[in-house]
Amino acid sequence: MAEEVMNNKQIILKHYVEGYPKESDMEFKNNNIKLNVQEGTNVVVLKNLYLSCDPYMRSRMSKLEGCYVQSFTPGSPITGCGVAKVLKSGDSNFQEGVVVILVVEKIGMFHLRWRMDYHDSPQLVSKNGVGQFAKMLGCCVVGSAGNKQKVDMLKTKFGFDEAFNYKEEHDLDATLKRYFPDGIDIYFENVGGKMLDAVLVNMKLHGRIAVCGMISQYNLDKTEGVHNLFCLIAKRIRMEGFLVFDYYHLYPKYLEMIIPQIKAGNIVYVEDIAEGFENAPSALVGLFSGLNVGKQVVMISCE
Amino acid sequence: MAEEVMNNKQIILKHYVEGYPKESDMEFKNNNIKLNVQEGTNVVVLKNLYLSCDPYMRSRMSKLEGCYVQSFTPGSPITGCGVAKVLKSGDSNFQEGVVVILVVEKIGMFHLRWRMDYHDSPQLVSKNGVGQFAKMLGCCVVGSAGNKQKVDMLKTKFGFDEAFNYKEEHDLDATLKRYFPDGIDIYFENVGGKMLDAVLVNMKLHGRIAVCGMISQYNLDKTEGVHNLFCLIAKRIRMEGFLVFDYYHLYPKYLEMIIPQIKAGNIVYVEDIAEGFENAPSALVGLFSGLNVGKQVVMISCE
Repeated sequence: MAEEVMNNKQIILKHYVEGYPKESDMEFKNNNIKLNVQEGTNVVVLKNLYLSCDPYMRSRMSKLEGCYVQSFTPGSPITGCGVAKVLKSGDSNFQEGVVVILVVEKIGMFHLRWRMDYHDSPQLVSKNGVGQFAKMLGCCVVGSAGNKQKVDMLKTKFGFDEAFNYKEEHDLDATLKRYFPDGIDIYFENVGGKMLDAVLVNMKLHGRIAVCGMISQYNLDKTEGVHNLFCLIAKRIRMEGFLVFDYYHLYPKYLEMIIPQIKAGNIVYVEDIAEGFENAPSALVGLFSGLNVGKQVVMISCE
Repeated sequence: MAEEVMNNKQIILKHYVEGYPKESDMEFKNNNIKLNVQEGTNVVVLKNLYLSCDPYMRSRMSKLEGCYVQSFTPGSPITGCGVAKVLKSGDSNFQEGVVVILVVEKIGMFHLRWRMDYHDSPQLVSKNGVGQFAKMLGCCVVGSAGNKQKVDMLKTKFGFDEAFNYKEEHDLDATLKRYFPDGIDIYFENVGGKMLDAVLVNMKLHGRIAVCGMISQYNLDKTEGVHNLFCLIAKRIRMEGFLVFDYYHLYPKYLEMIIPQIKAGNIVYVEDIAEGFENAPSALVGLFSGLNVGKQVVMISCE
C-alpha cells in the first residue's frame, strides 16, 4: 500500500506560563503525518473540525504536580476537547467519515491534540449553562458576568431572573444583599476569590456551594486568600467540589434529558466561534480577559 | 415571707475586645440578689459550681451582627456553660438541691451567667475529644497540639496513633506529608488559617472536612486568607460546617453510648481546673494562648 502523507499544523506551548497567558506563549509548527493505519488496531486518524477553549487549560500551561490534569509539555502540542472527523480507522467501532466529539479523560490524558493526528477511542461530551437547569428546577437564578452584553444575554436569552456586571460593582457584599435580601440557598462556584468571600457572608443557613471552578485565580502567581470560611460553621454550609470526570457514567441519561429540551427551545446555548486554526491561540487567551461571549469554540473546518 | 438577700459576684465585660482578650477586659462587680421565688413560676435560682471556658466565647466579646451567637453586652456579666445547683425553685421540674448542667441554647442565648443568679430551664451537655471517637471507629488518628505535654497526652492518654507540636513545625505541608504519606481521609477542623491550607493540599480524593471551629482566627483583626480552596475541586472534597445546637436532639442517644464507654475506660477526659471564681478571667484568657491542658473549667464550689 502506498504511504499517504499529509501536512499537519500544530500549536505548540513554548514554555510554562506565569500570569495571564499570551499568544506569544504558543507557536505554530508544521510537520507531516502518515495517514496509513493497520486494520484491527485501535488506531484512528482524525481531522479536527472544532476545538474547544476551556478555562481549565490555563492550569495545564503551568508546571503541575499531583493535579487532576497533567501539564502540557513545553515544546509539544496543546491538547483539549473538540469535534473531529475520522479520516482513517483501524478500529471497527469508528468508521471513516464519522464525526466524533472528544472529551477530557479521567485523569490527565486528553483525547484531542490541537493538531490533526490522533490515536485513541473518543467519547461524547456537551456543555451547557447550569443557570438554565436551575431555572428548569424552579429556582430563582441570578447571574454574574463581566460586561453589559453578557448580562443582557443572561436575562433575555437564558431567562435568568436577574444578572449583574461584577466589574461595575465595587462592593460585592452590597450587590449580593441587593439581589438576595433573604440570602442565597445555592451558589454555583466558578469564580473564587472576592466573589466567594462575598457569597459566604450572604449564604443562608444550611446553604450549599457546588464548587466547579475558580477562574479569577488561574492567572495569579499567588491565589487570593478567602477570609470568610468561618461562615461555613456559623451557617452550617456544605461546600463540595466536583469534576465532570466523575459523572460520565450519567452522560447517556443526560443526553436523553437534554436533547428534547434543546429541540423544544427550553435550553439554549450561545457559541463564540473563532474561524480558522490560526486564531486558536488568541481565542484561548481571550477566555481569561472575558472576551468570549458564550462558549468559546475554534472552527477549523466544517467537514 | 422574709426576703432572703445574698451577695452576688459577677464578671463584667468592660468593652468589646480587639485582638487577644486580656484579663483587664473584664472586671468583678458585687451586687445583692433576692433568693425568693414564687411557686408555680419557671424561676430557678442557681448557685454556680463550675464554669466552662470555651473558644466560641471570644467571638461574643466582639460586636457581632447576624451571627449564630450574640455579643456579650459591655457592662453586663459574661455568660457561658457550666454546672450549677438549684438553690431556690419555683419550677417543679427543678427541685432544690439538684445539680444541673447548663448549655448553650439554639441561637444567641446562654443559660448561665458568670454569676450566681439565673432564671431559665437548663439542659445537659458534655464535651469530649472527637479523636477518641475516631479511634473507636477504627481510624488512624493524628493529633496536633501546641506543646510537648499535650502532644504526649494525645498519644499516651488518648491513644492517638501519632501527634505533633505544630509550634515546632515550620513547614506544615511537609509535616502532614510525613504523618500522612497517602493523604488524609477526614480532617476535623478546629484551627483554620495556615493549618487548613496545609491540610487541603494533603487531603485524599473525596476527602471530608468537618468544620467545627477555627481558633487560630478568633483574635485576628483580619482573618488569614485560605489559598488552597481549589483543592476542593481537584480532589472533590466535601467541607461542611456544623454547630452542636443542631444535634441536641441526639443527646440522649449520645449519653446512652458514651456513659458505658467512660465507665469502661475506653473514653477518657482531661480537665484543667482553675480554682476560685476570681481566677475565671485568667482561665478564659489562657485558652487563646493554649495555657490550658485539657478542657478548661473554673471550680467555684464543690457543693
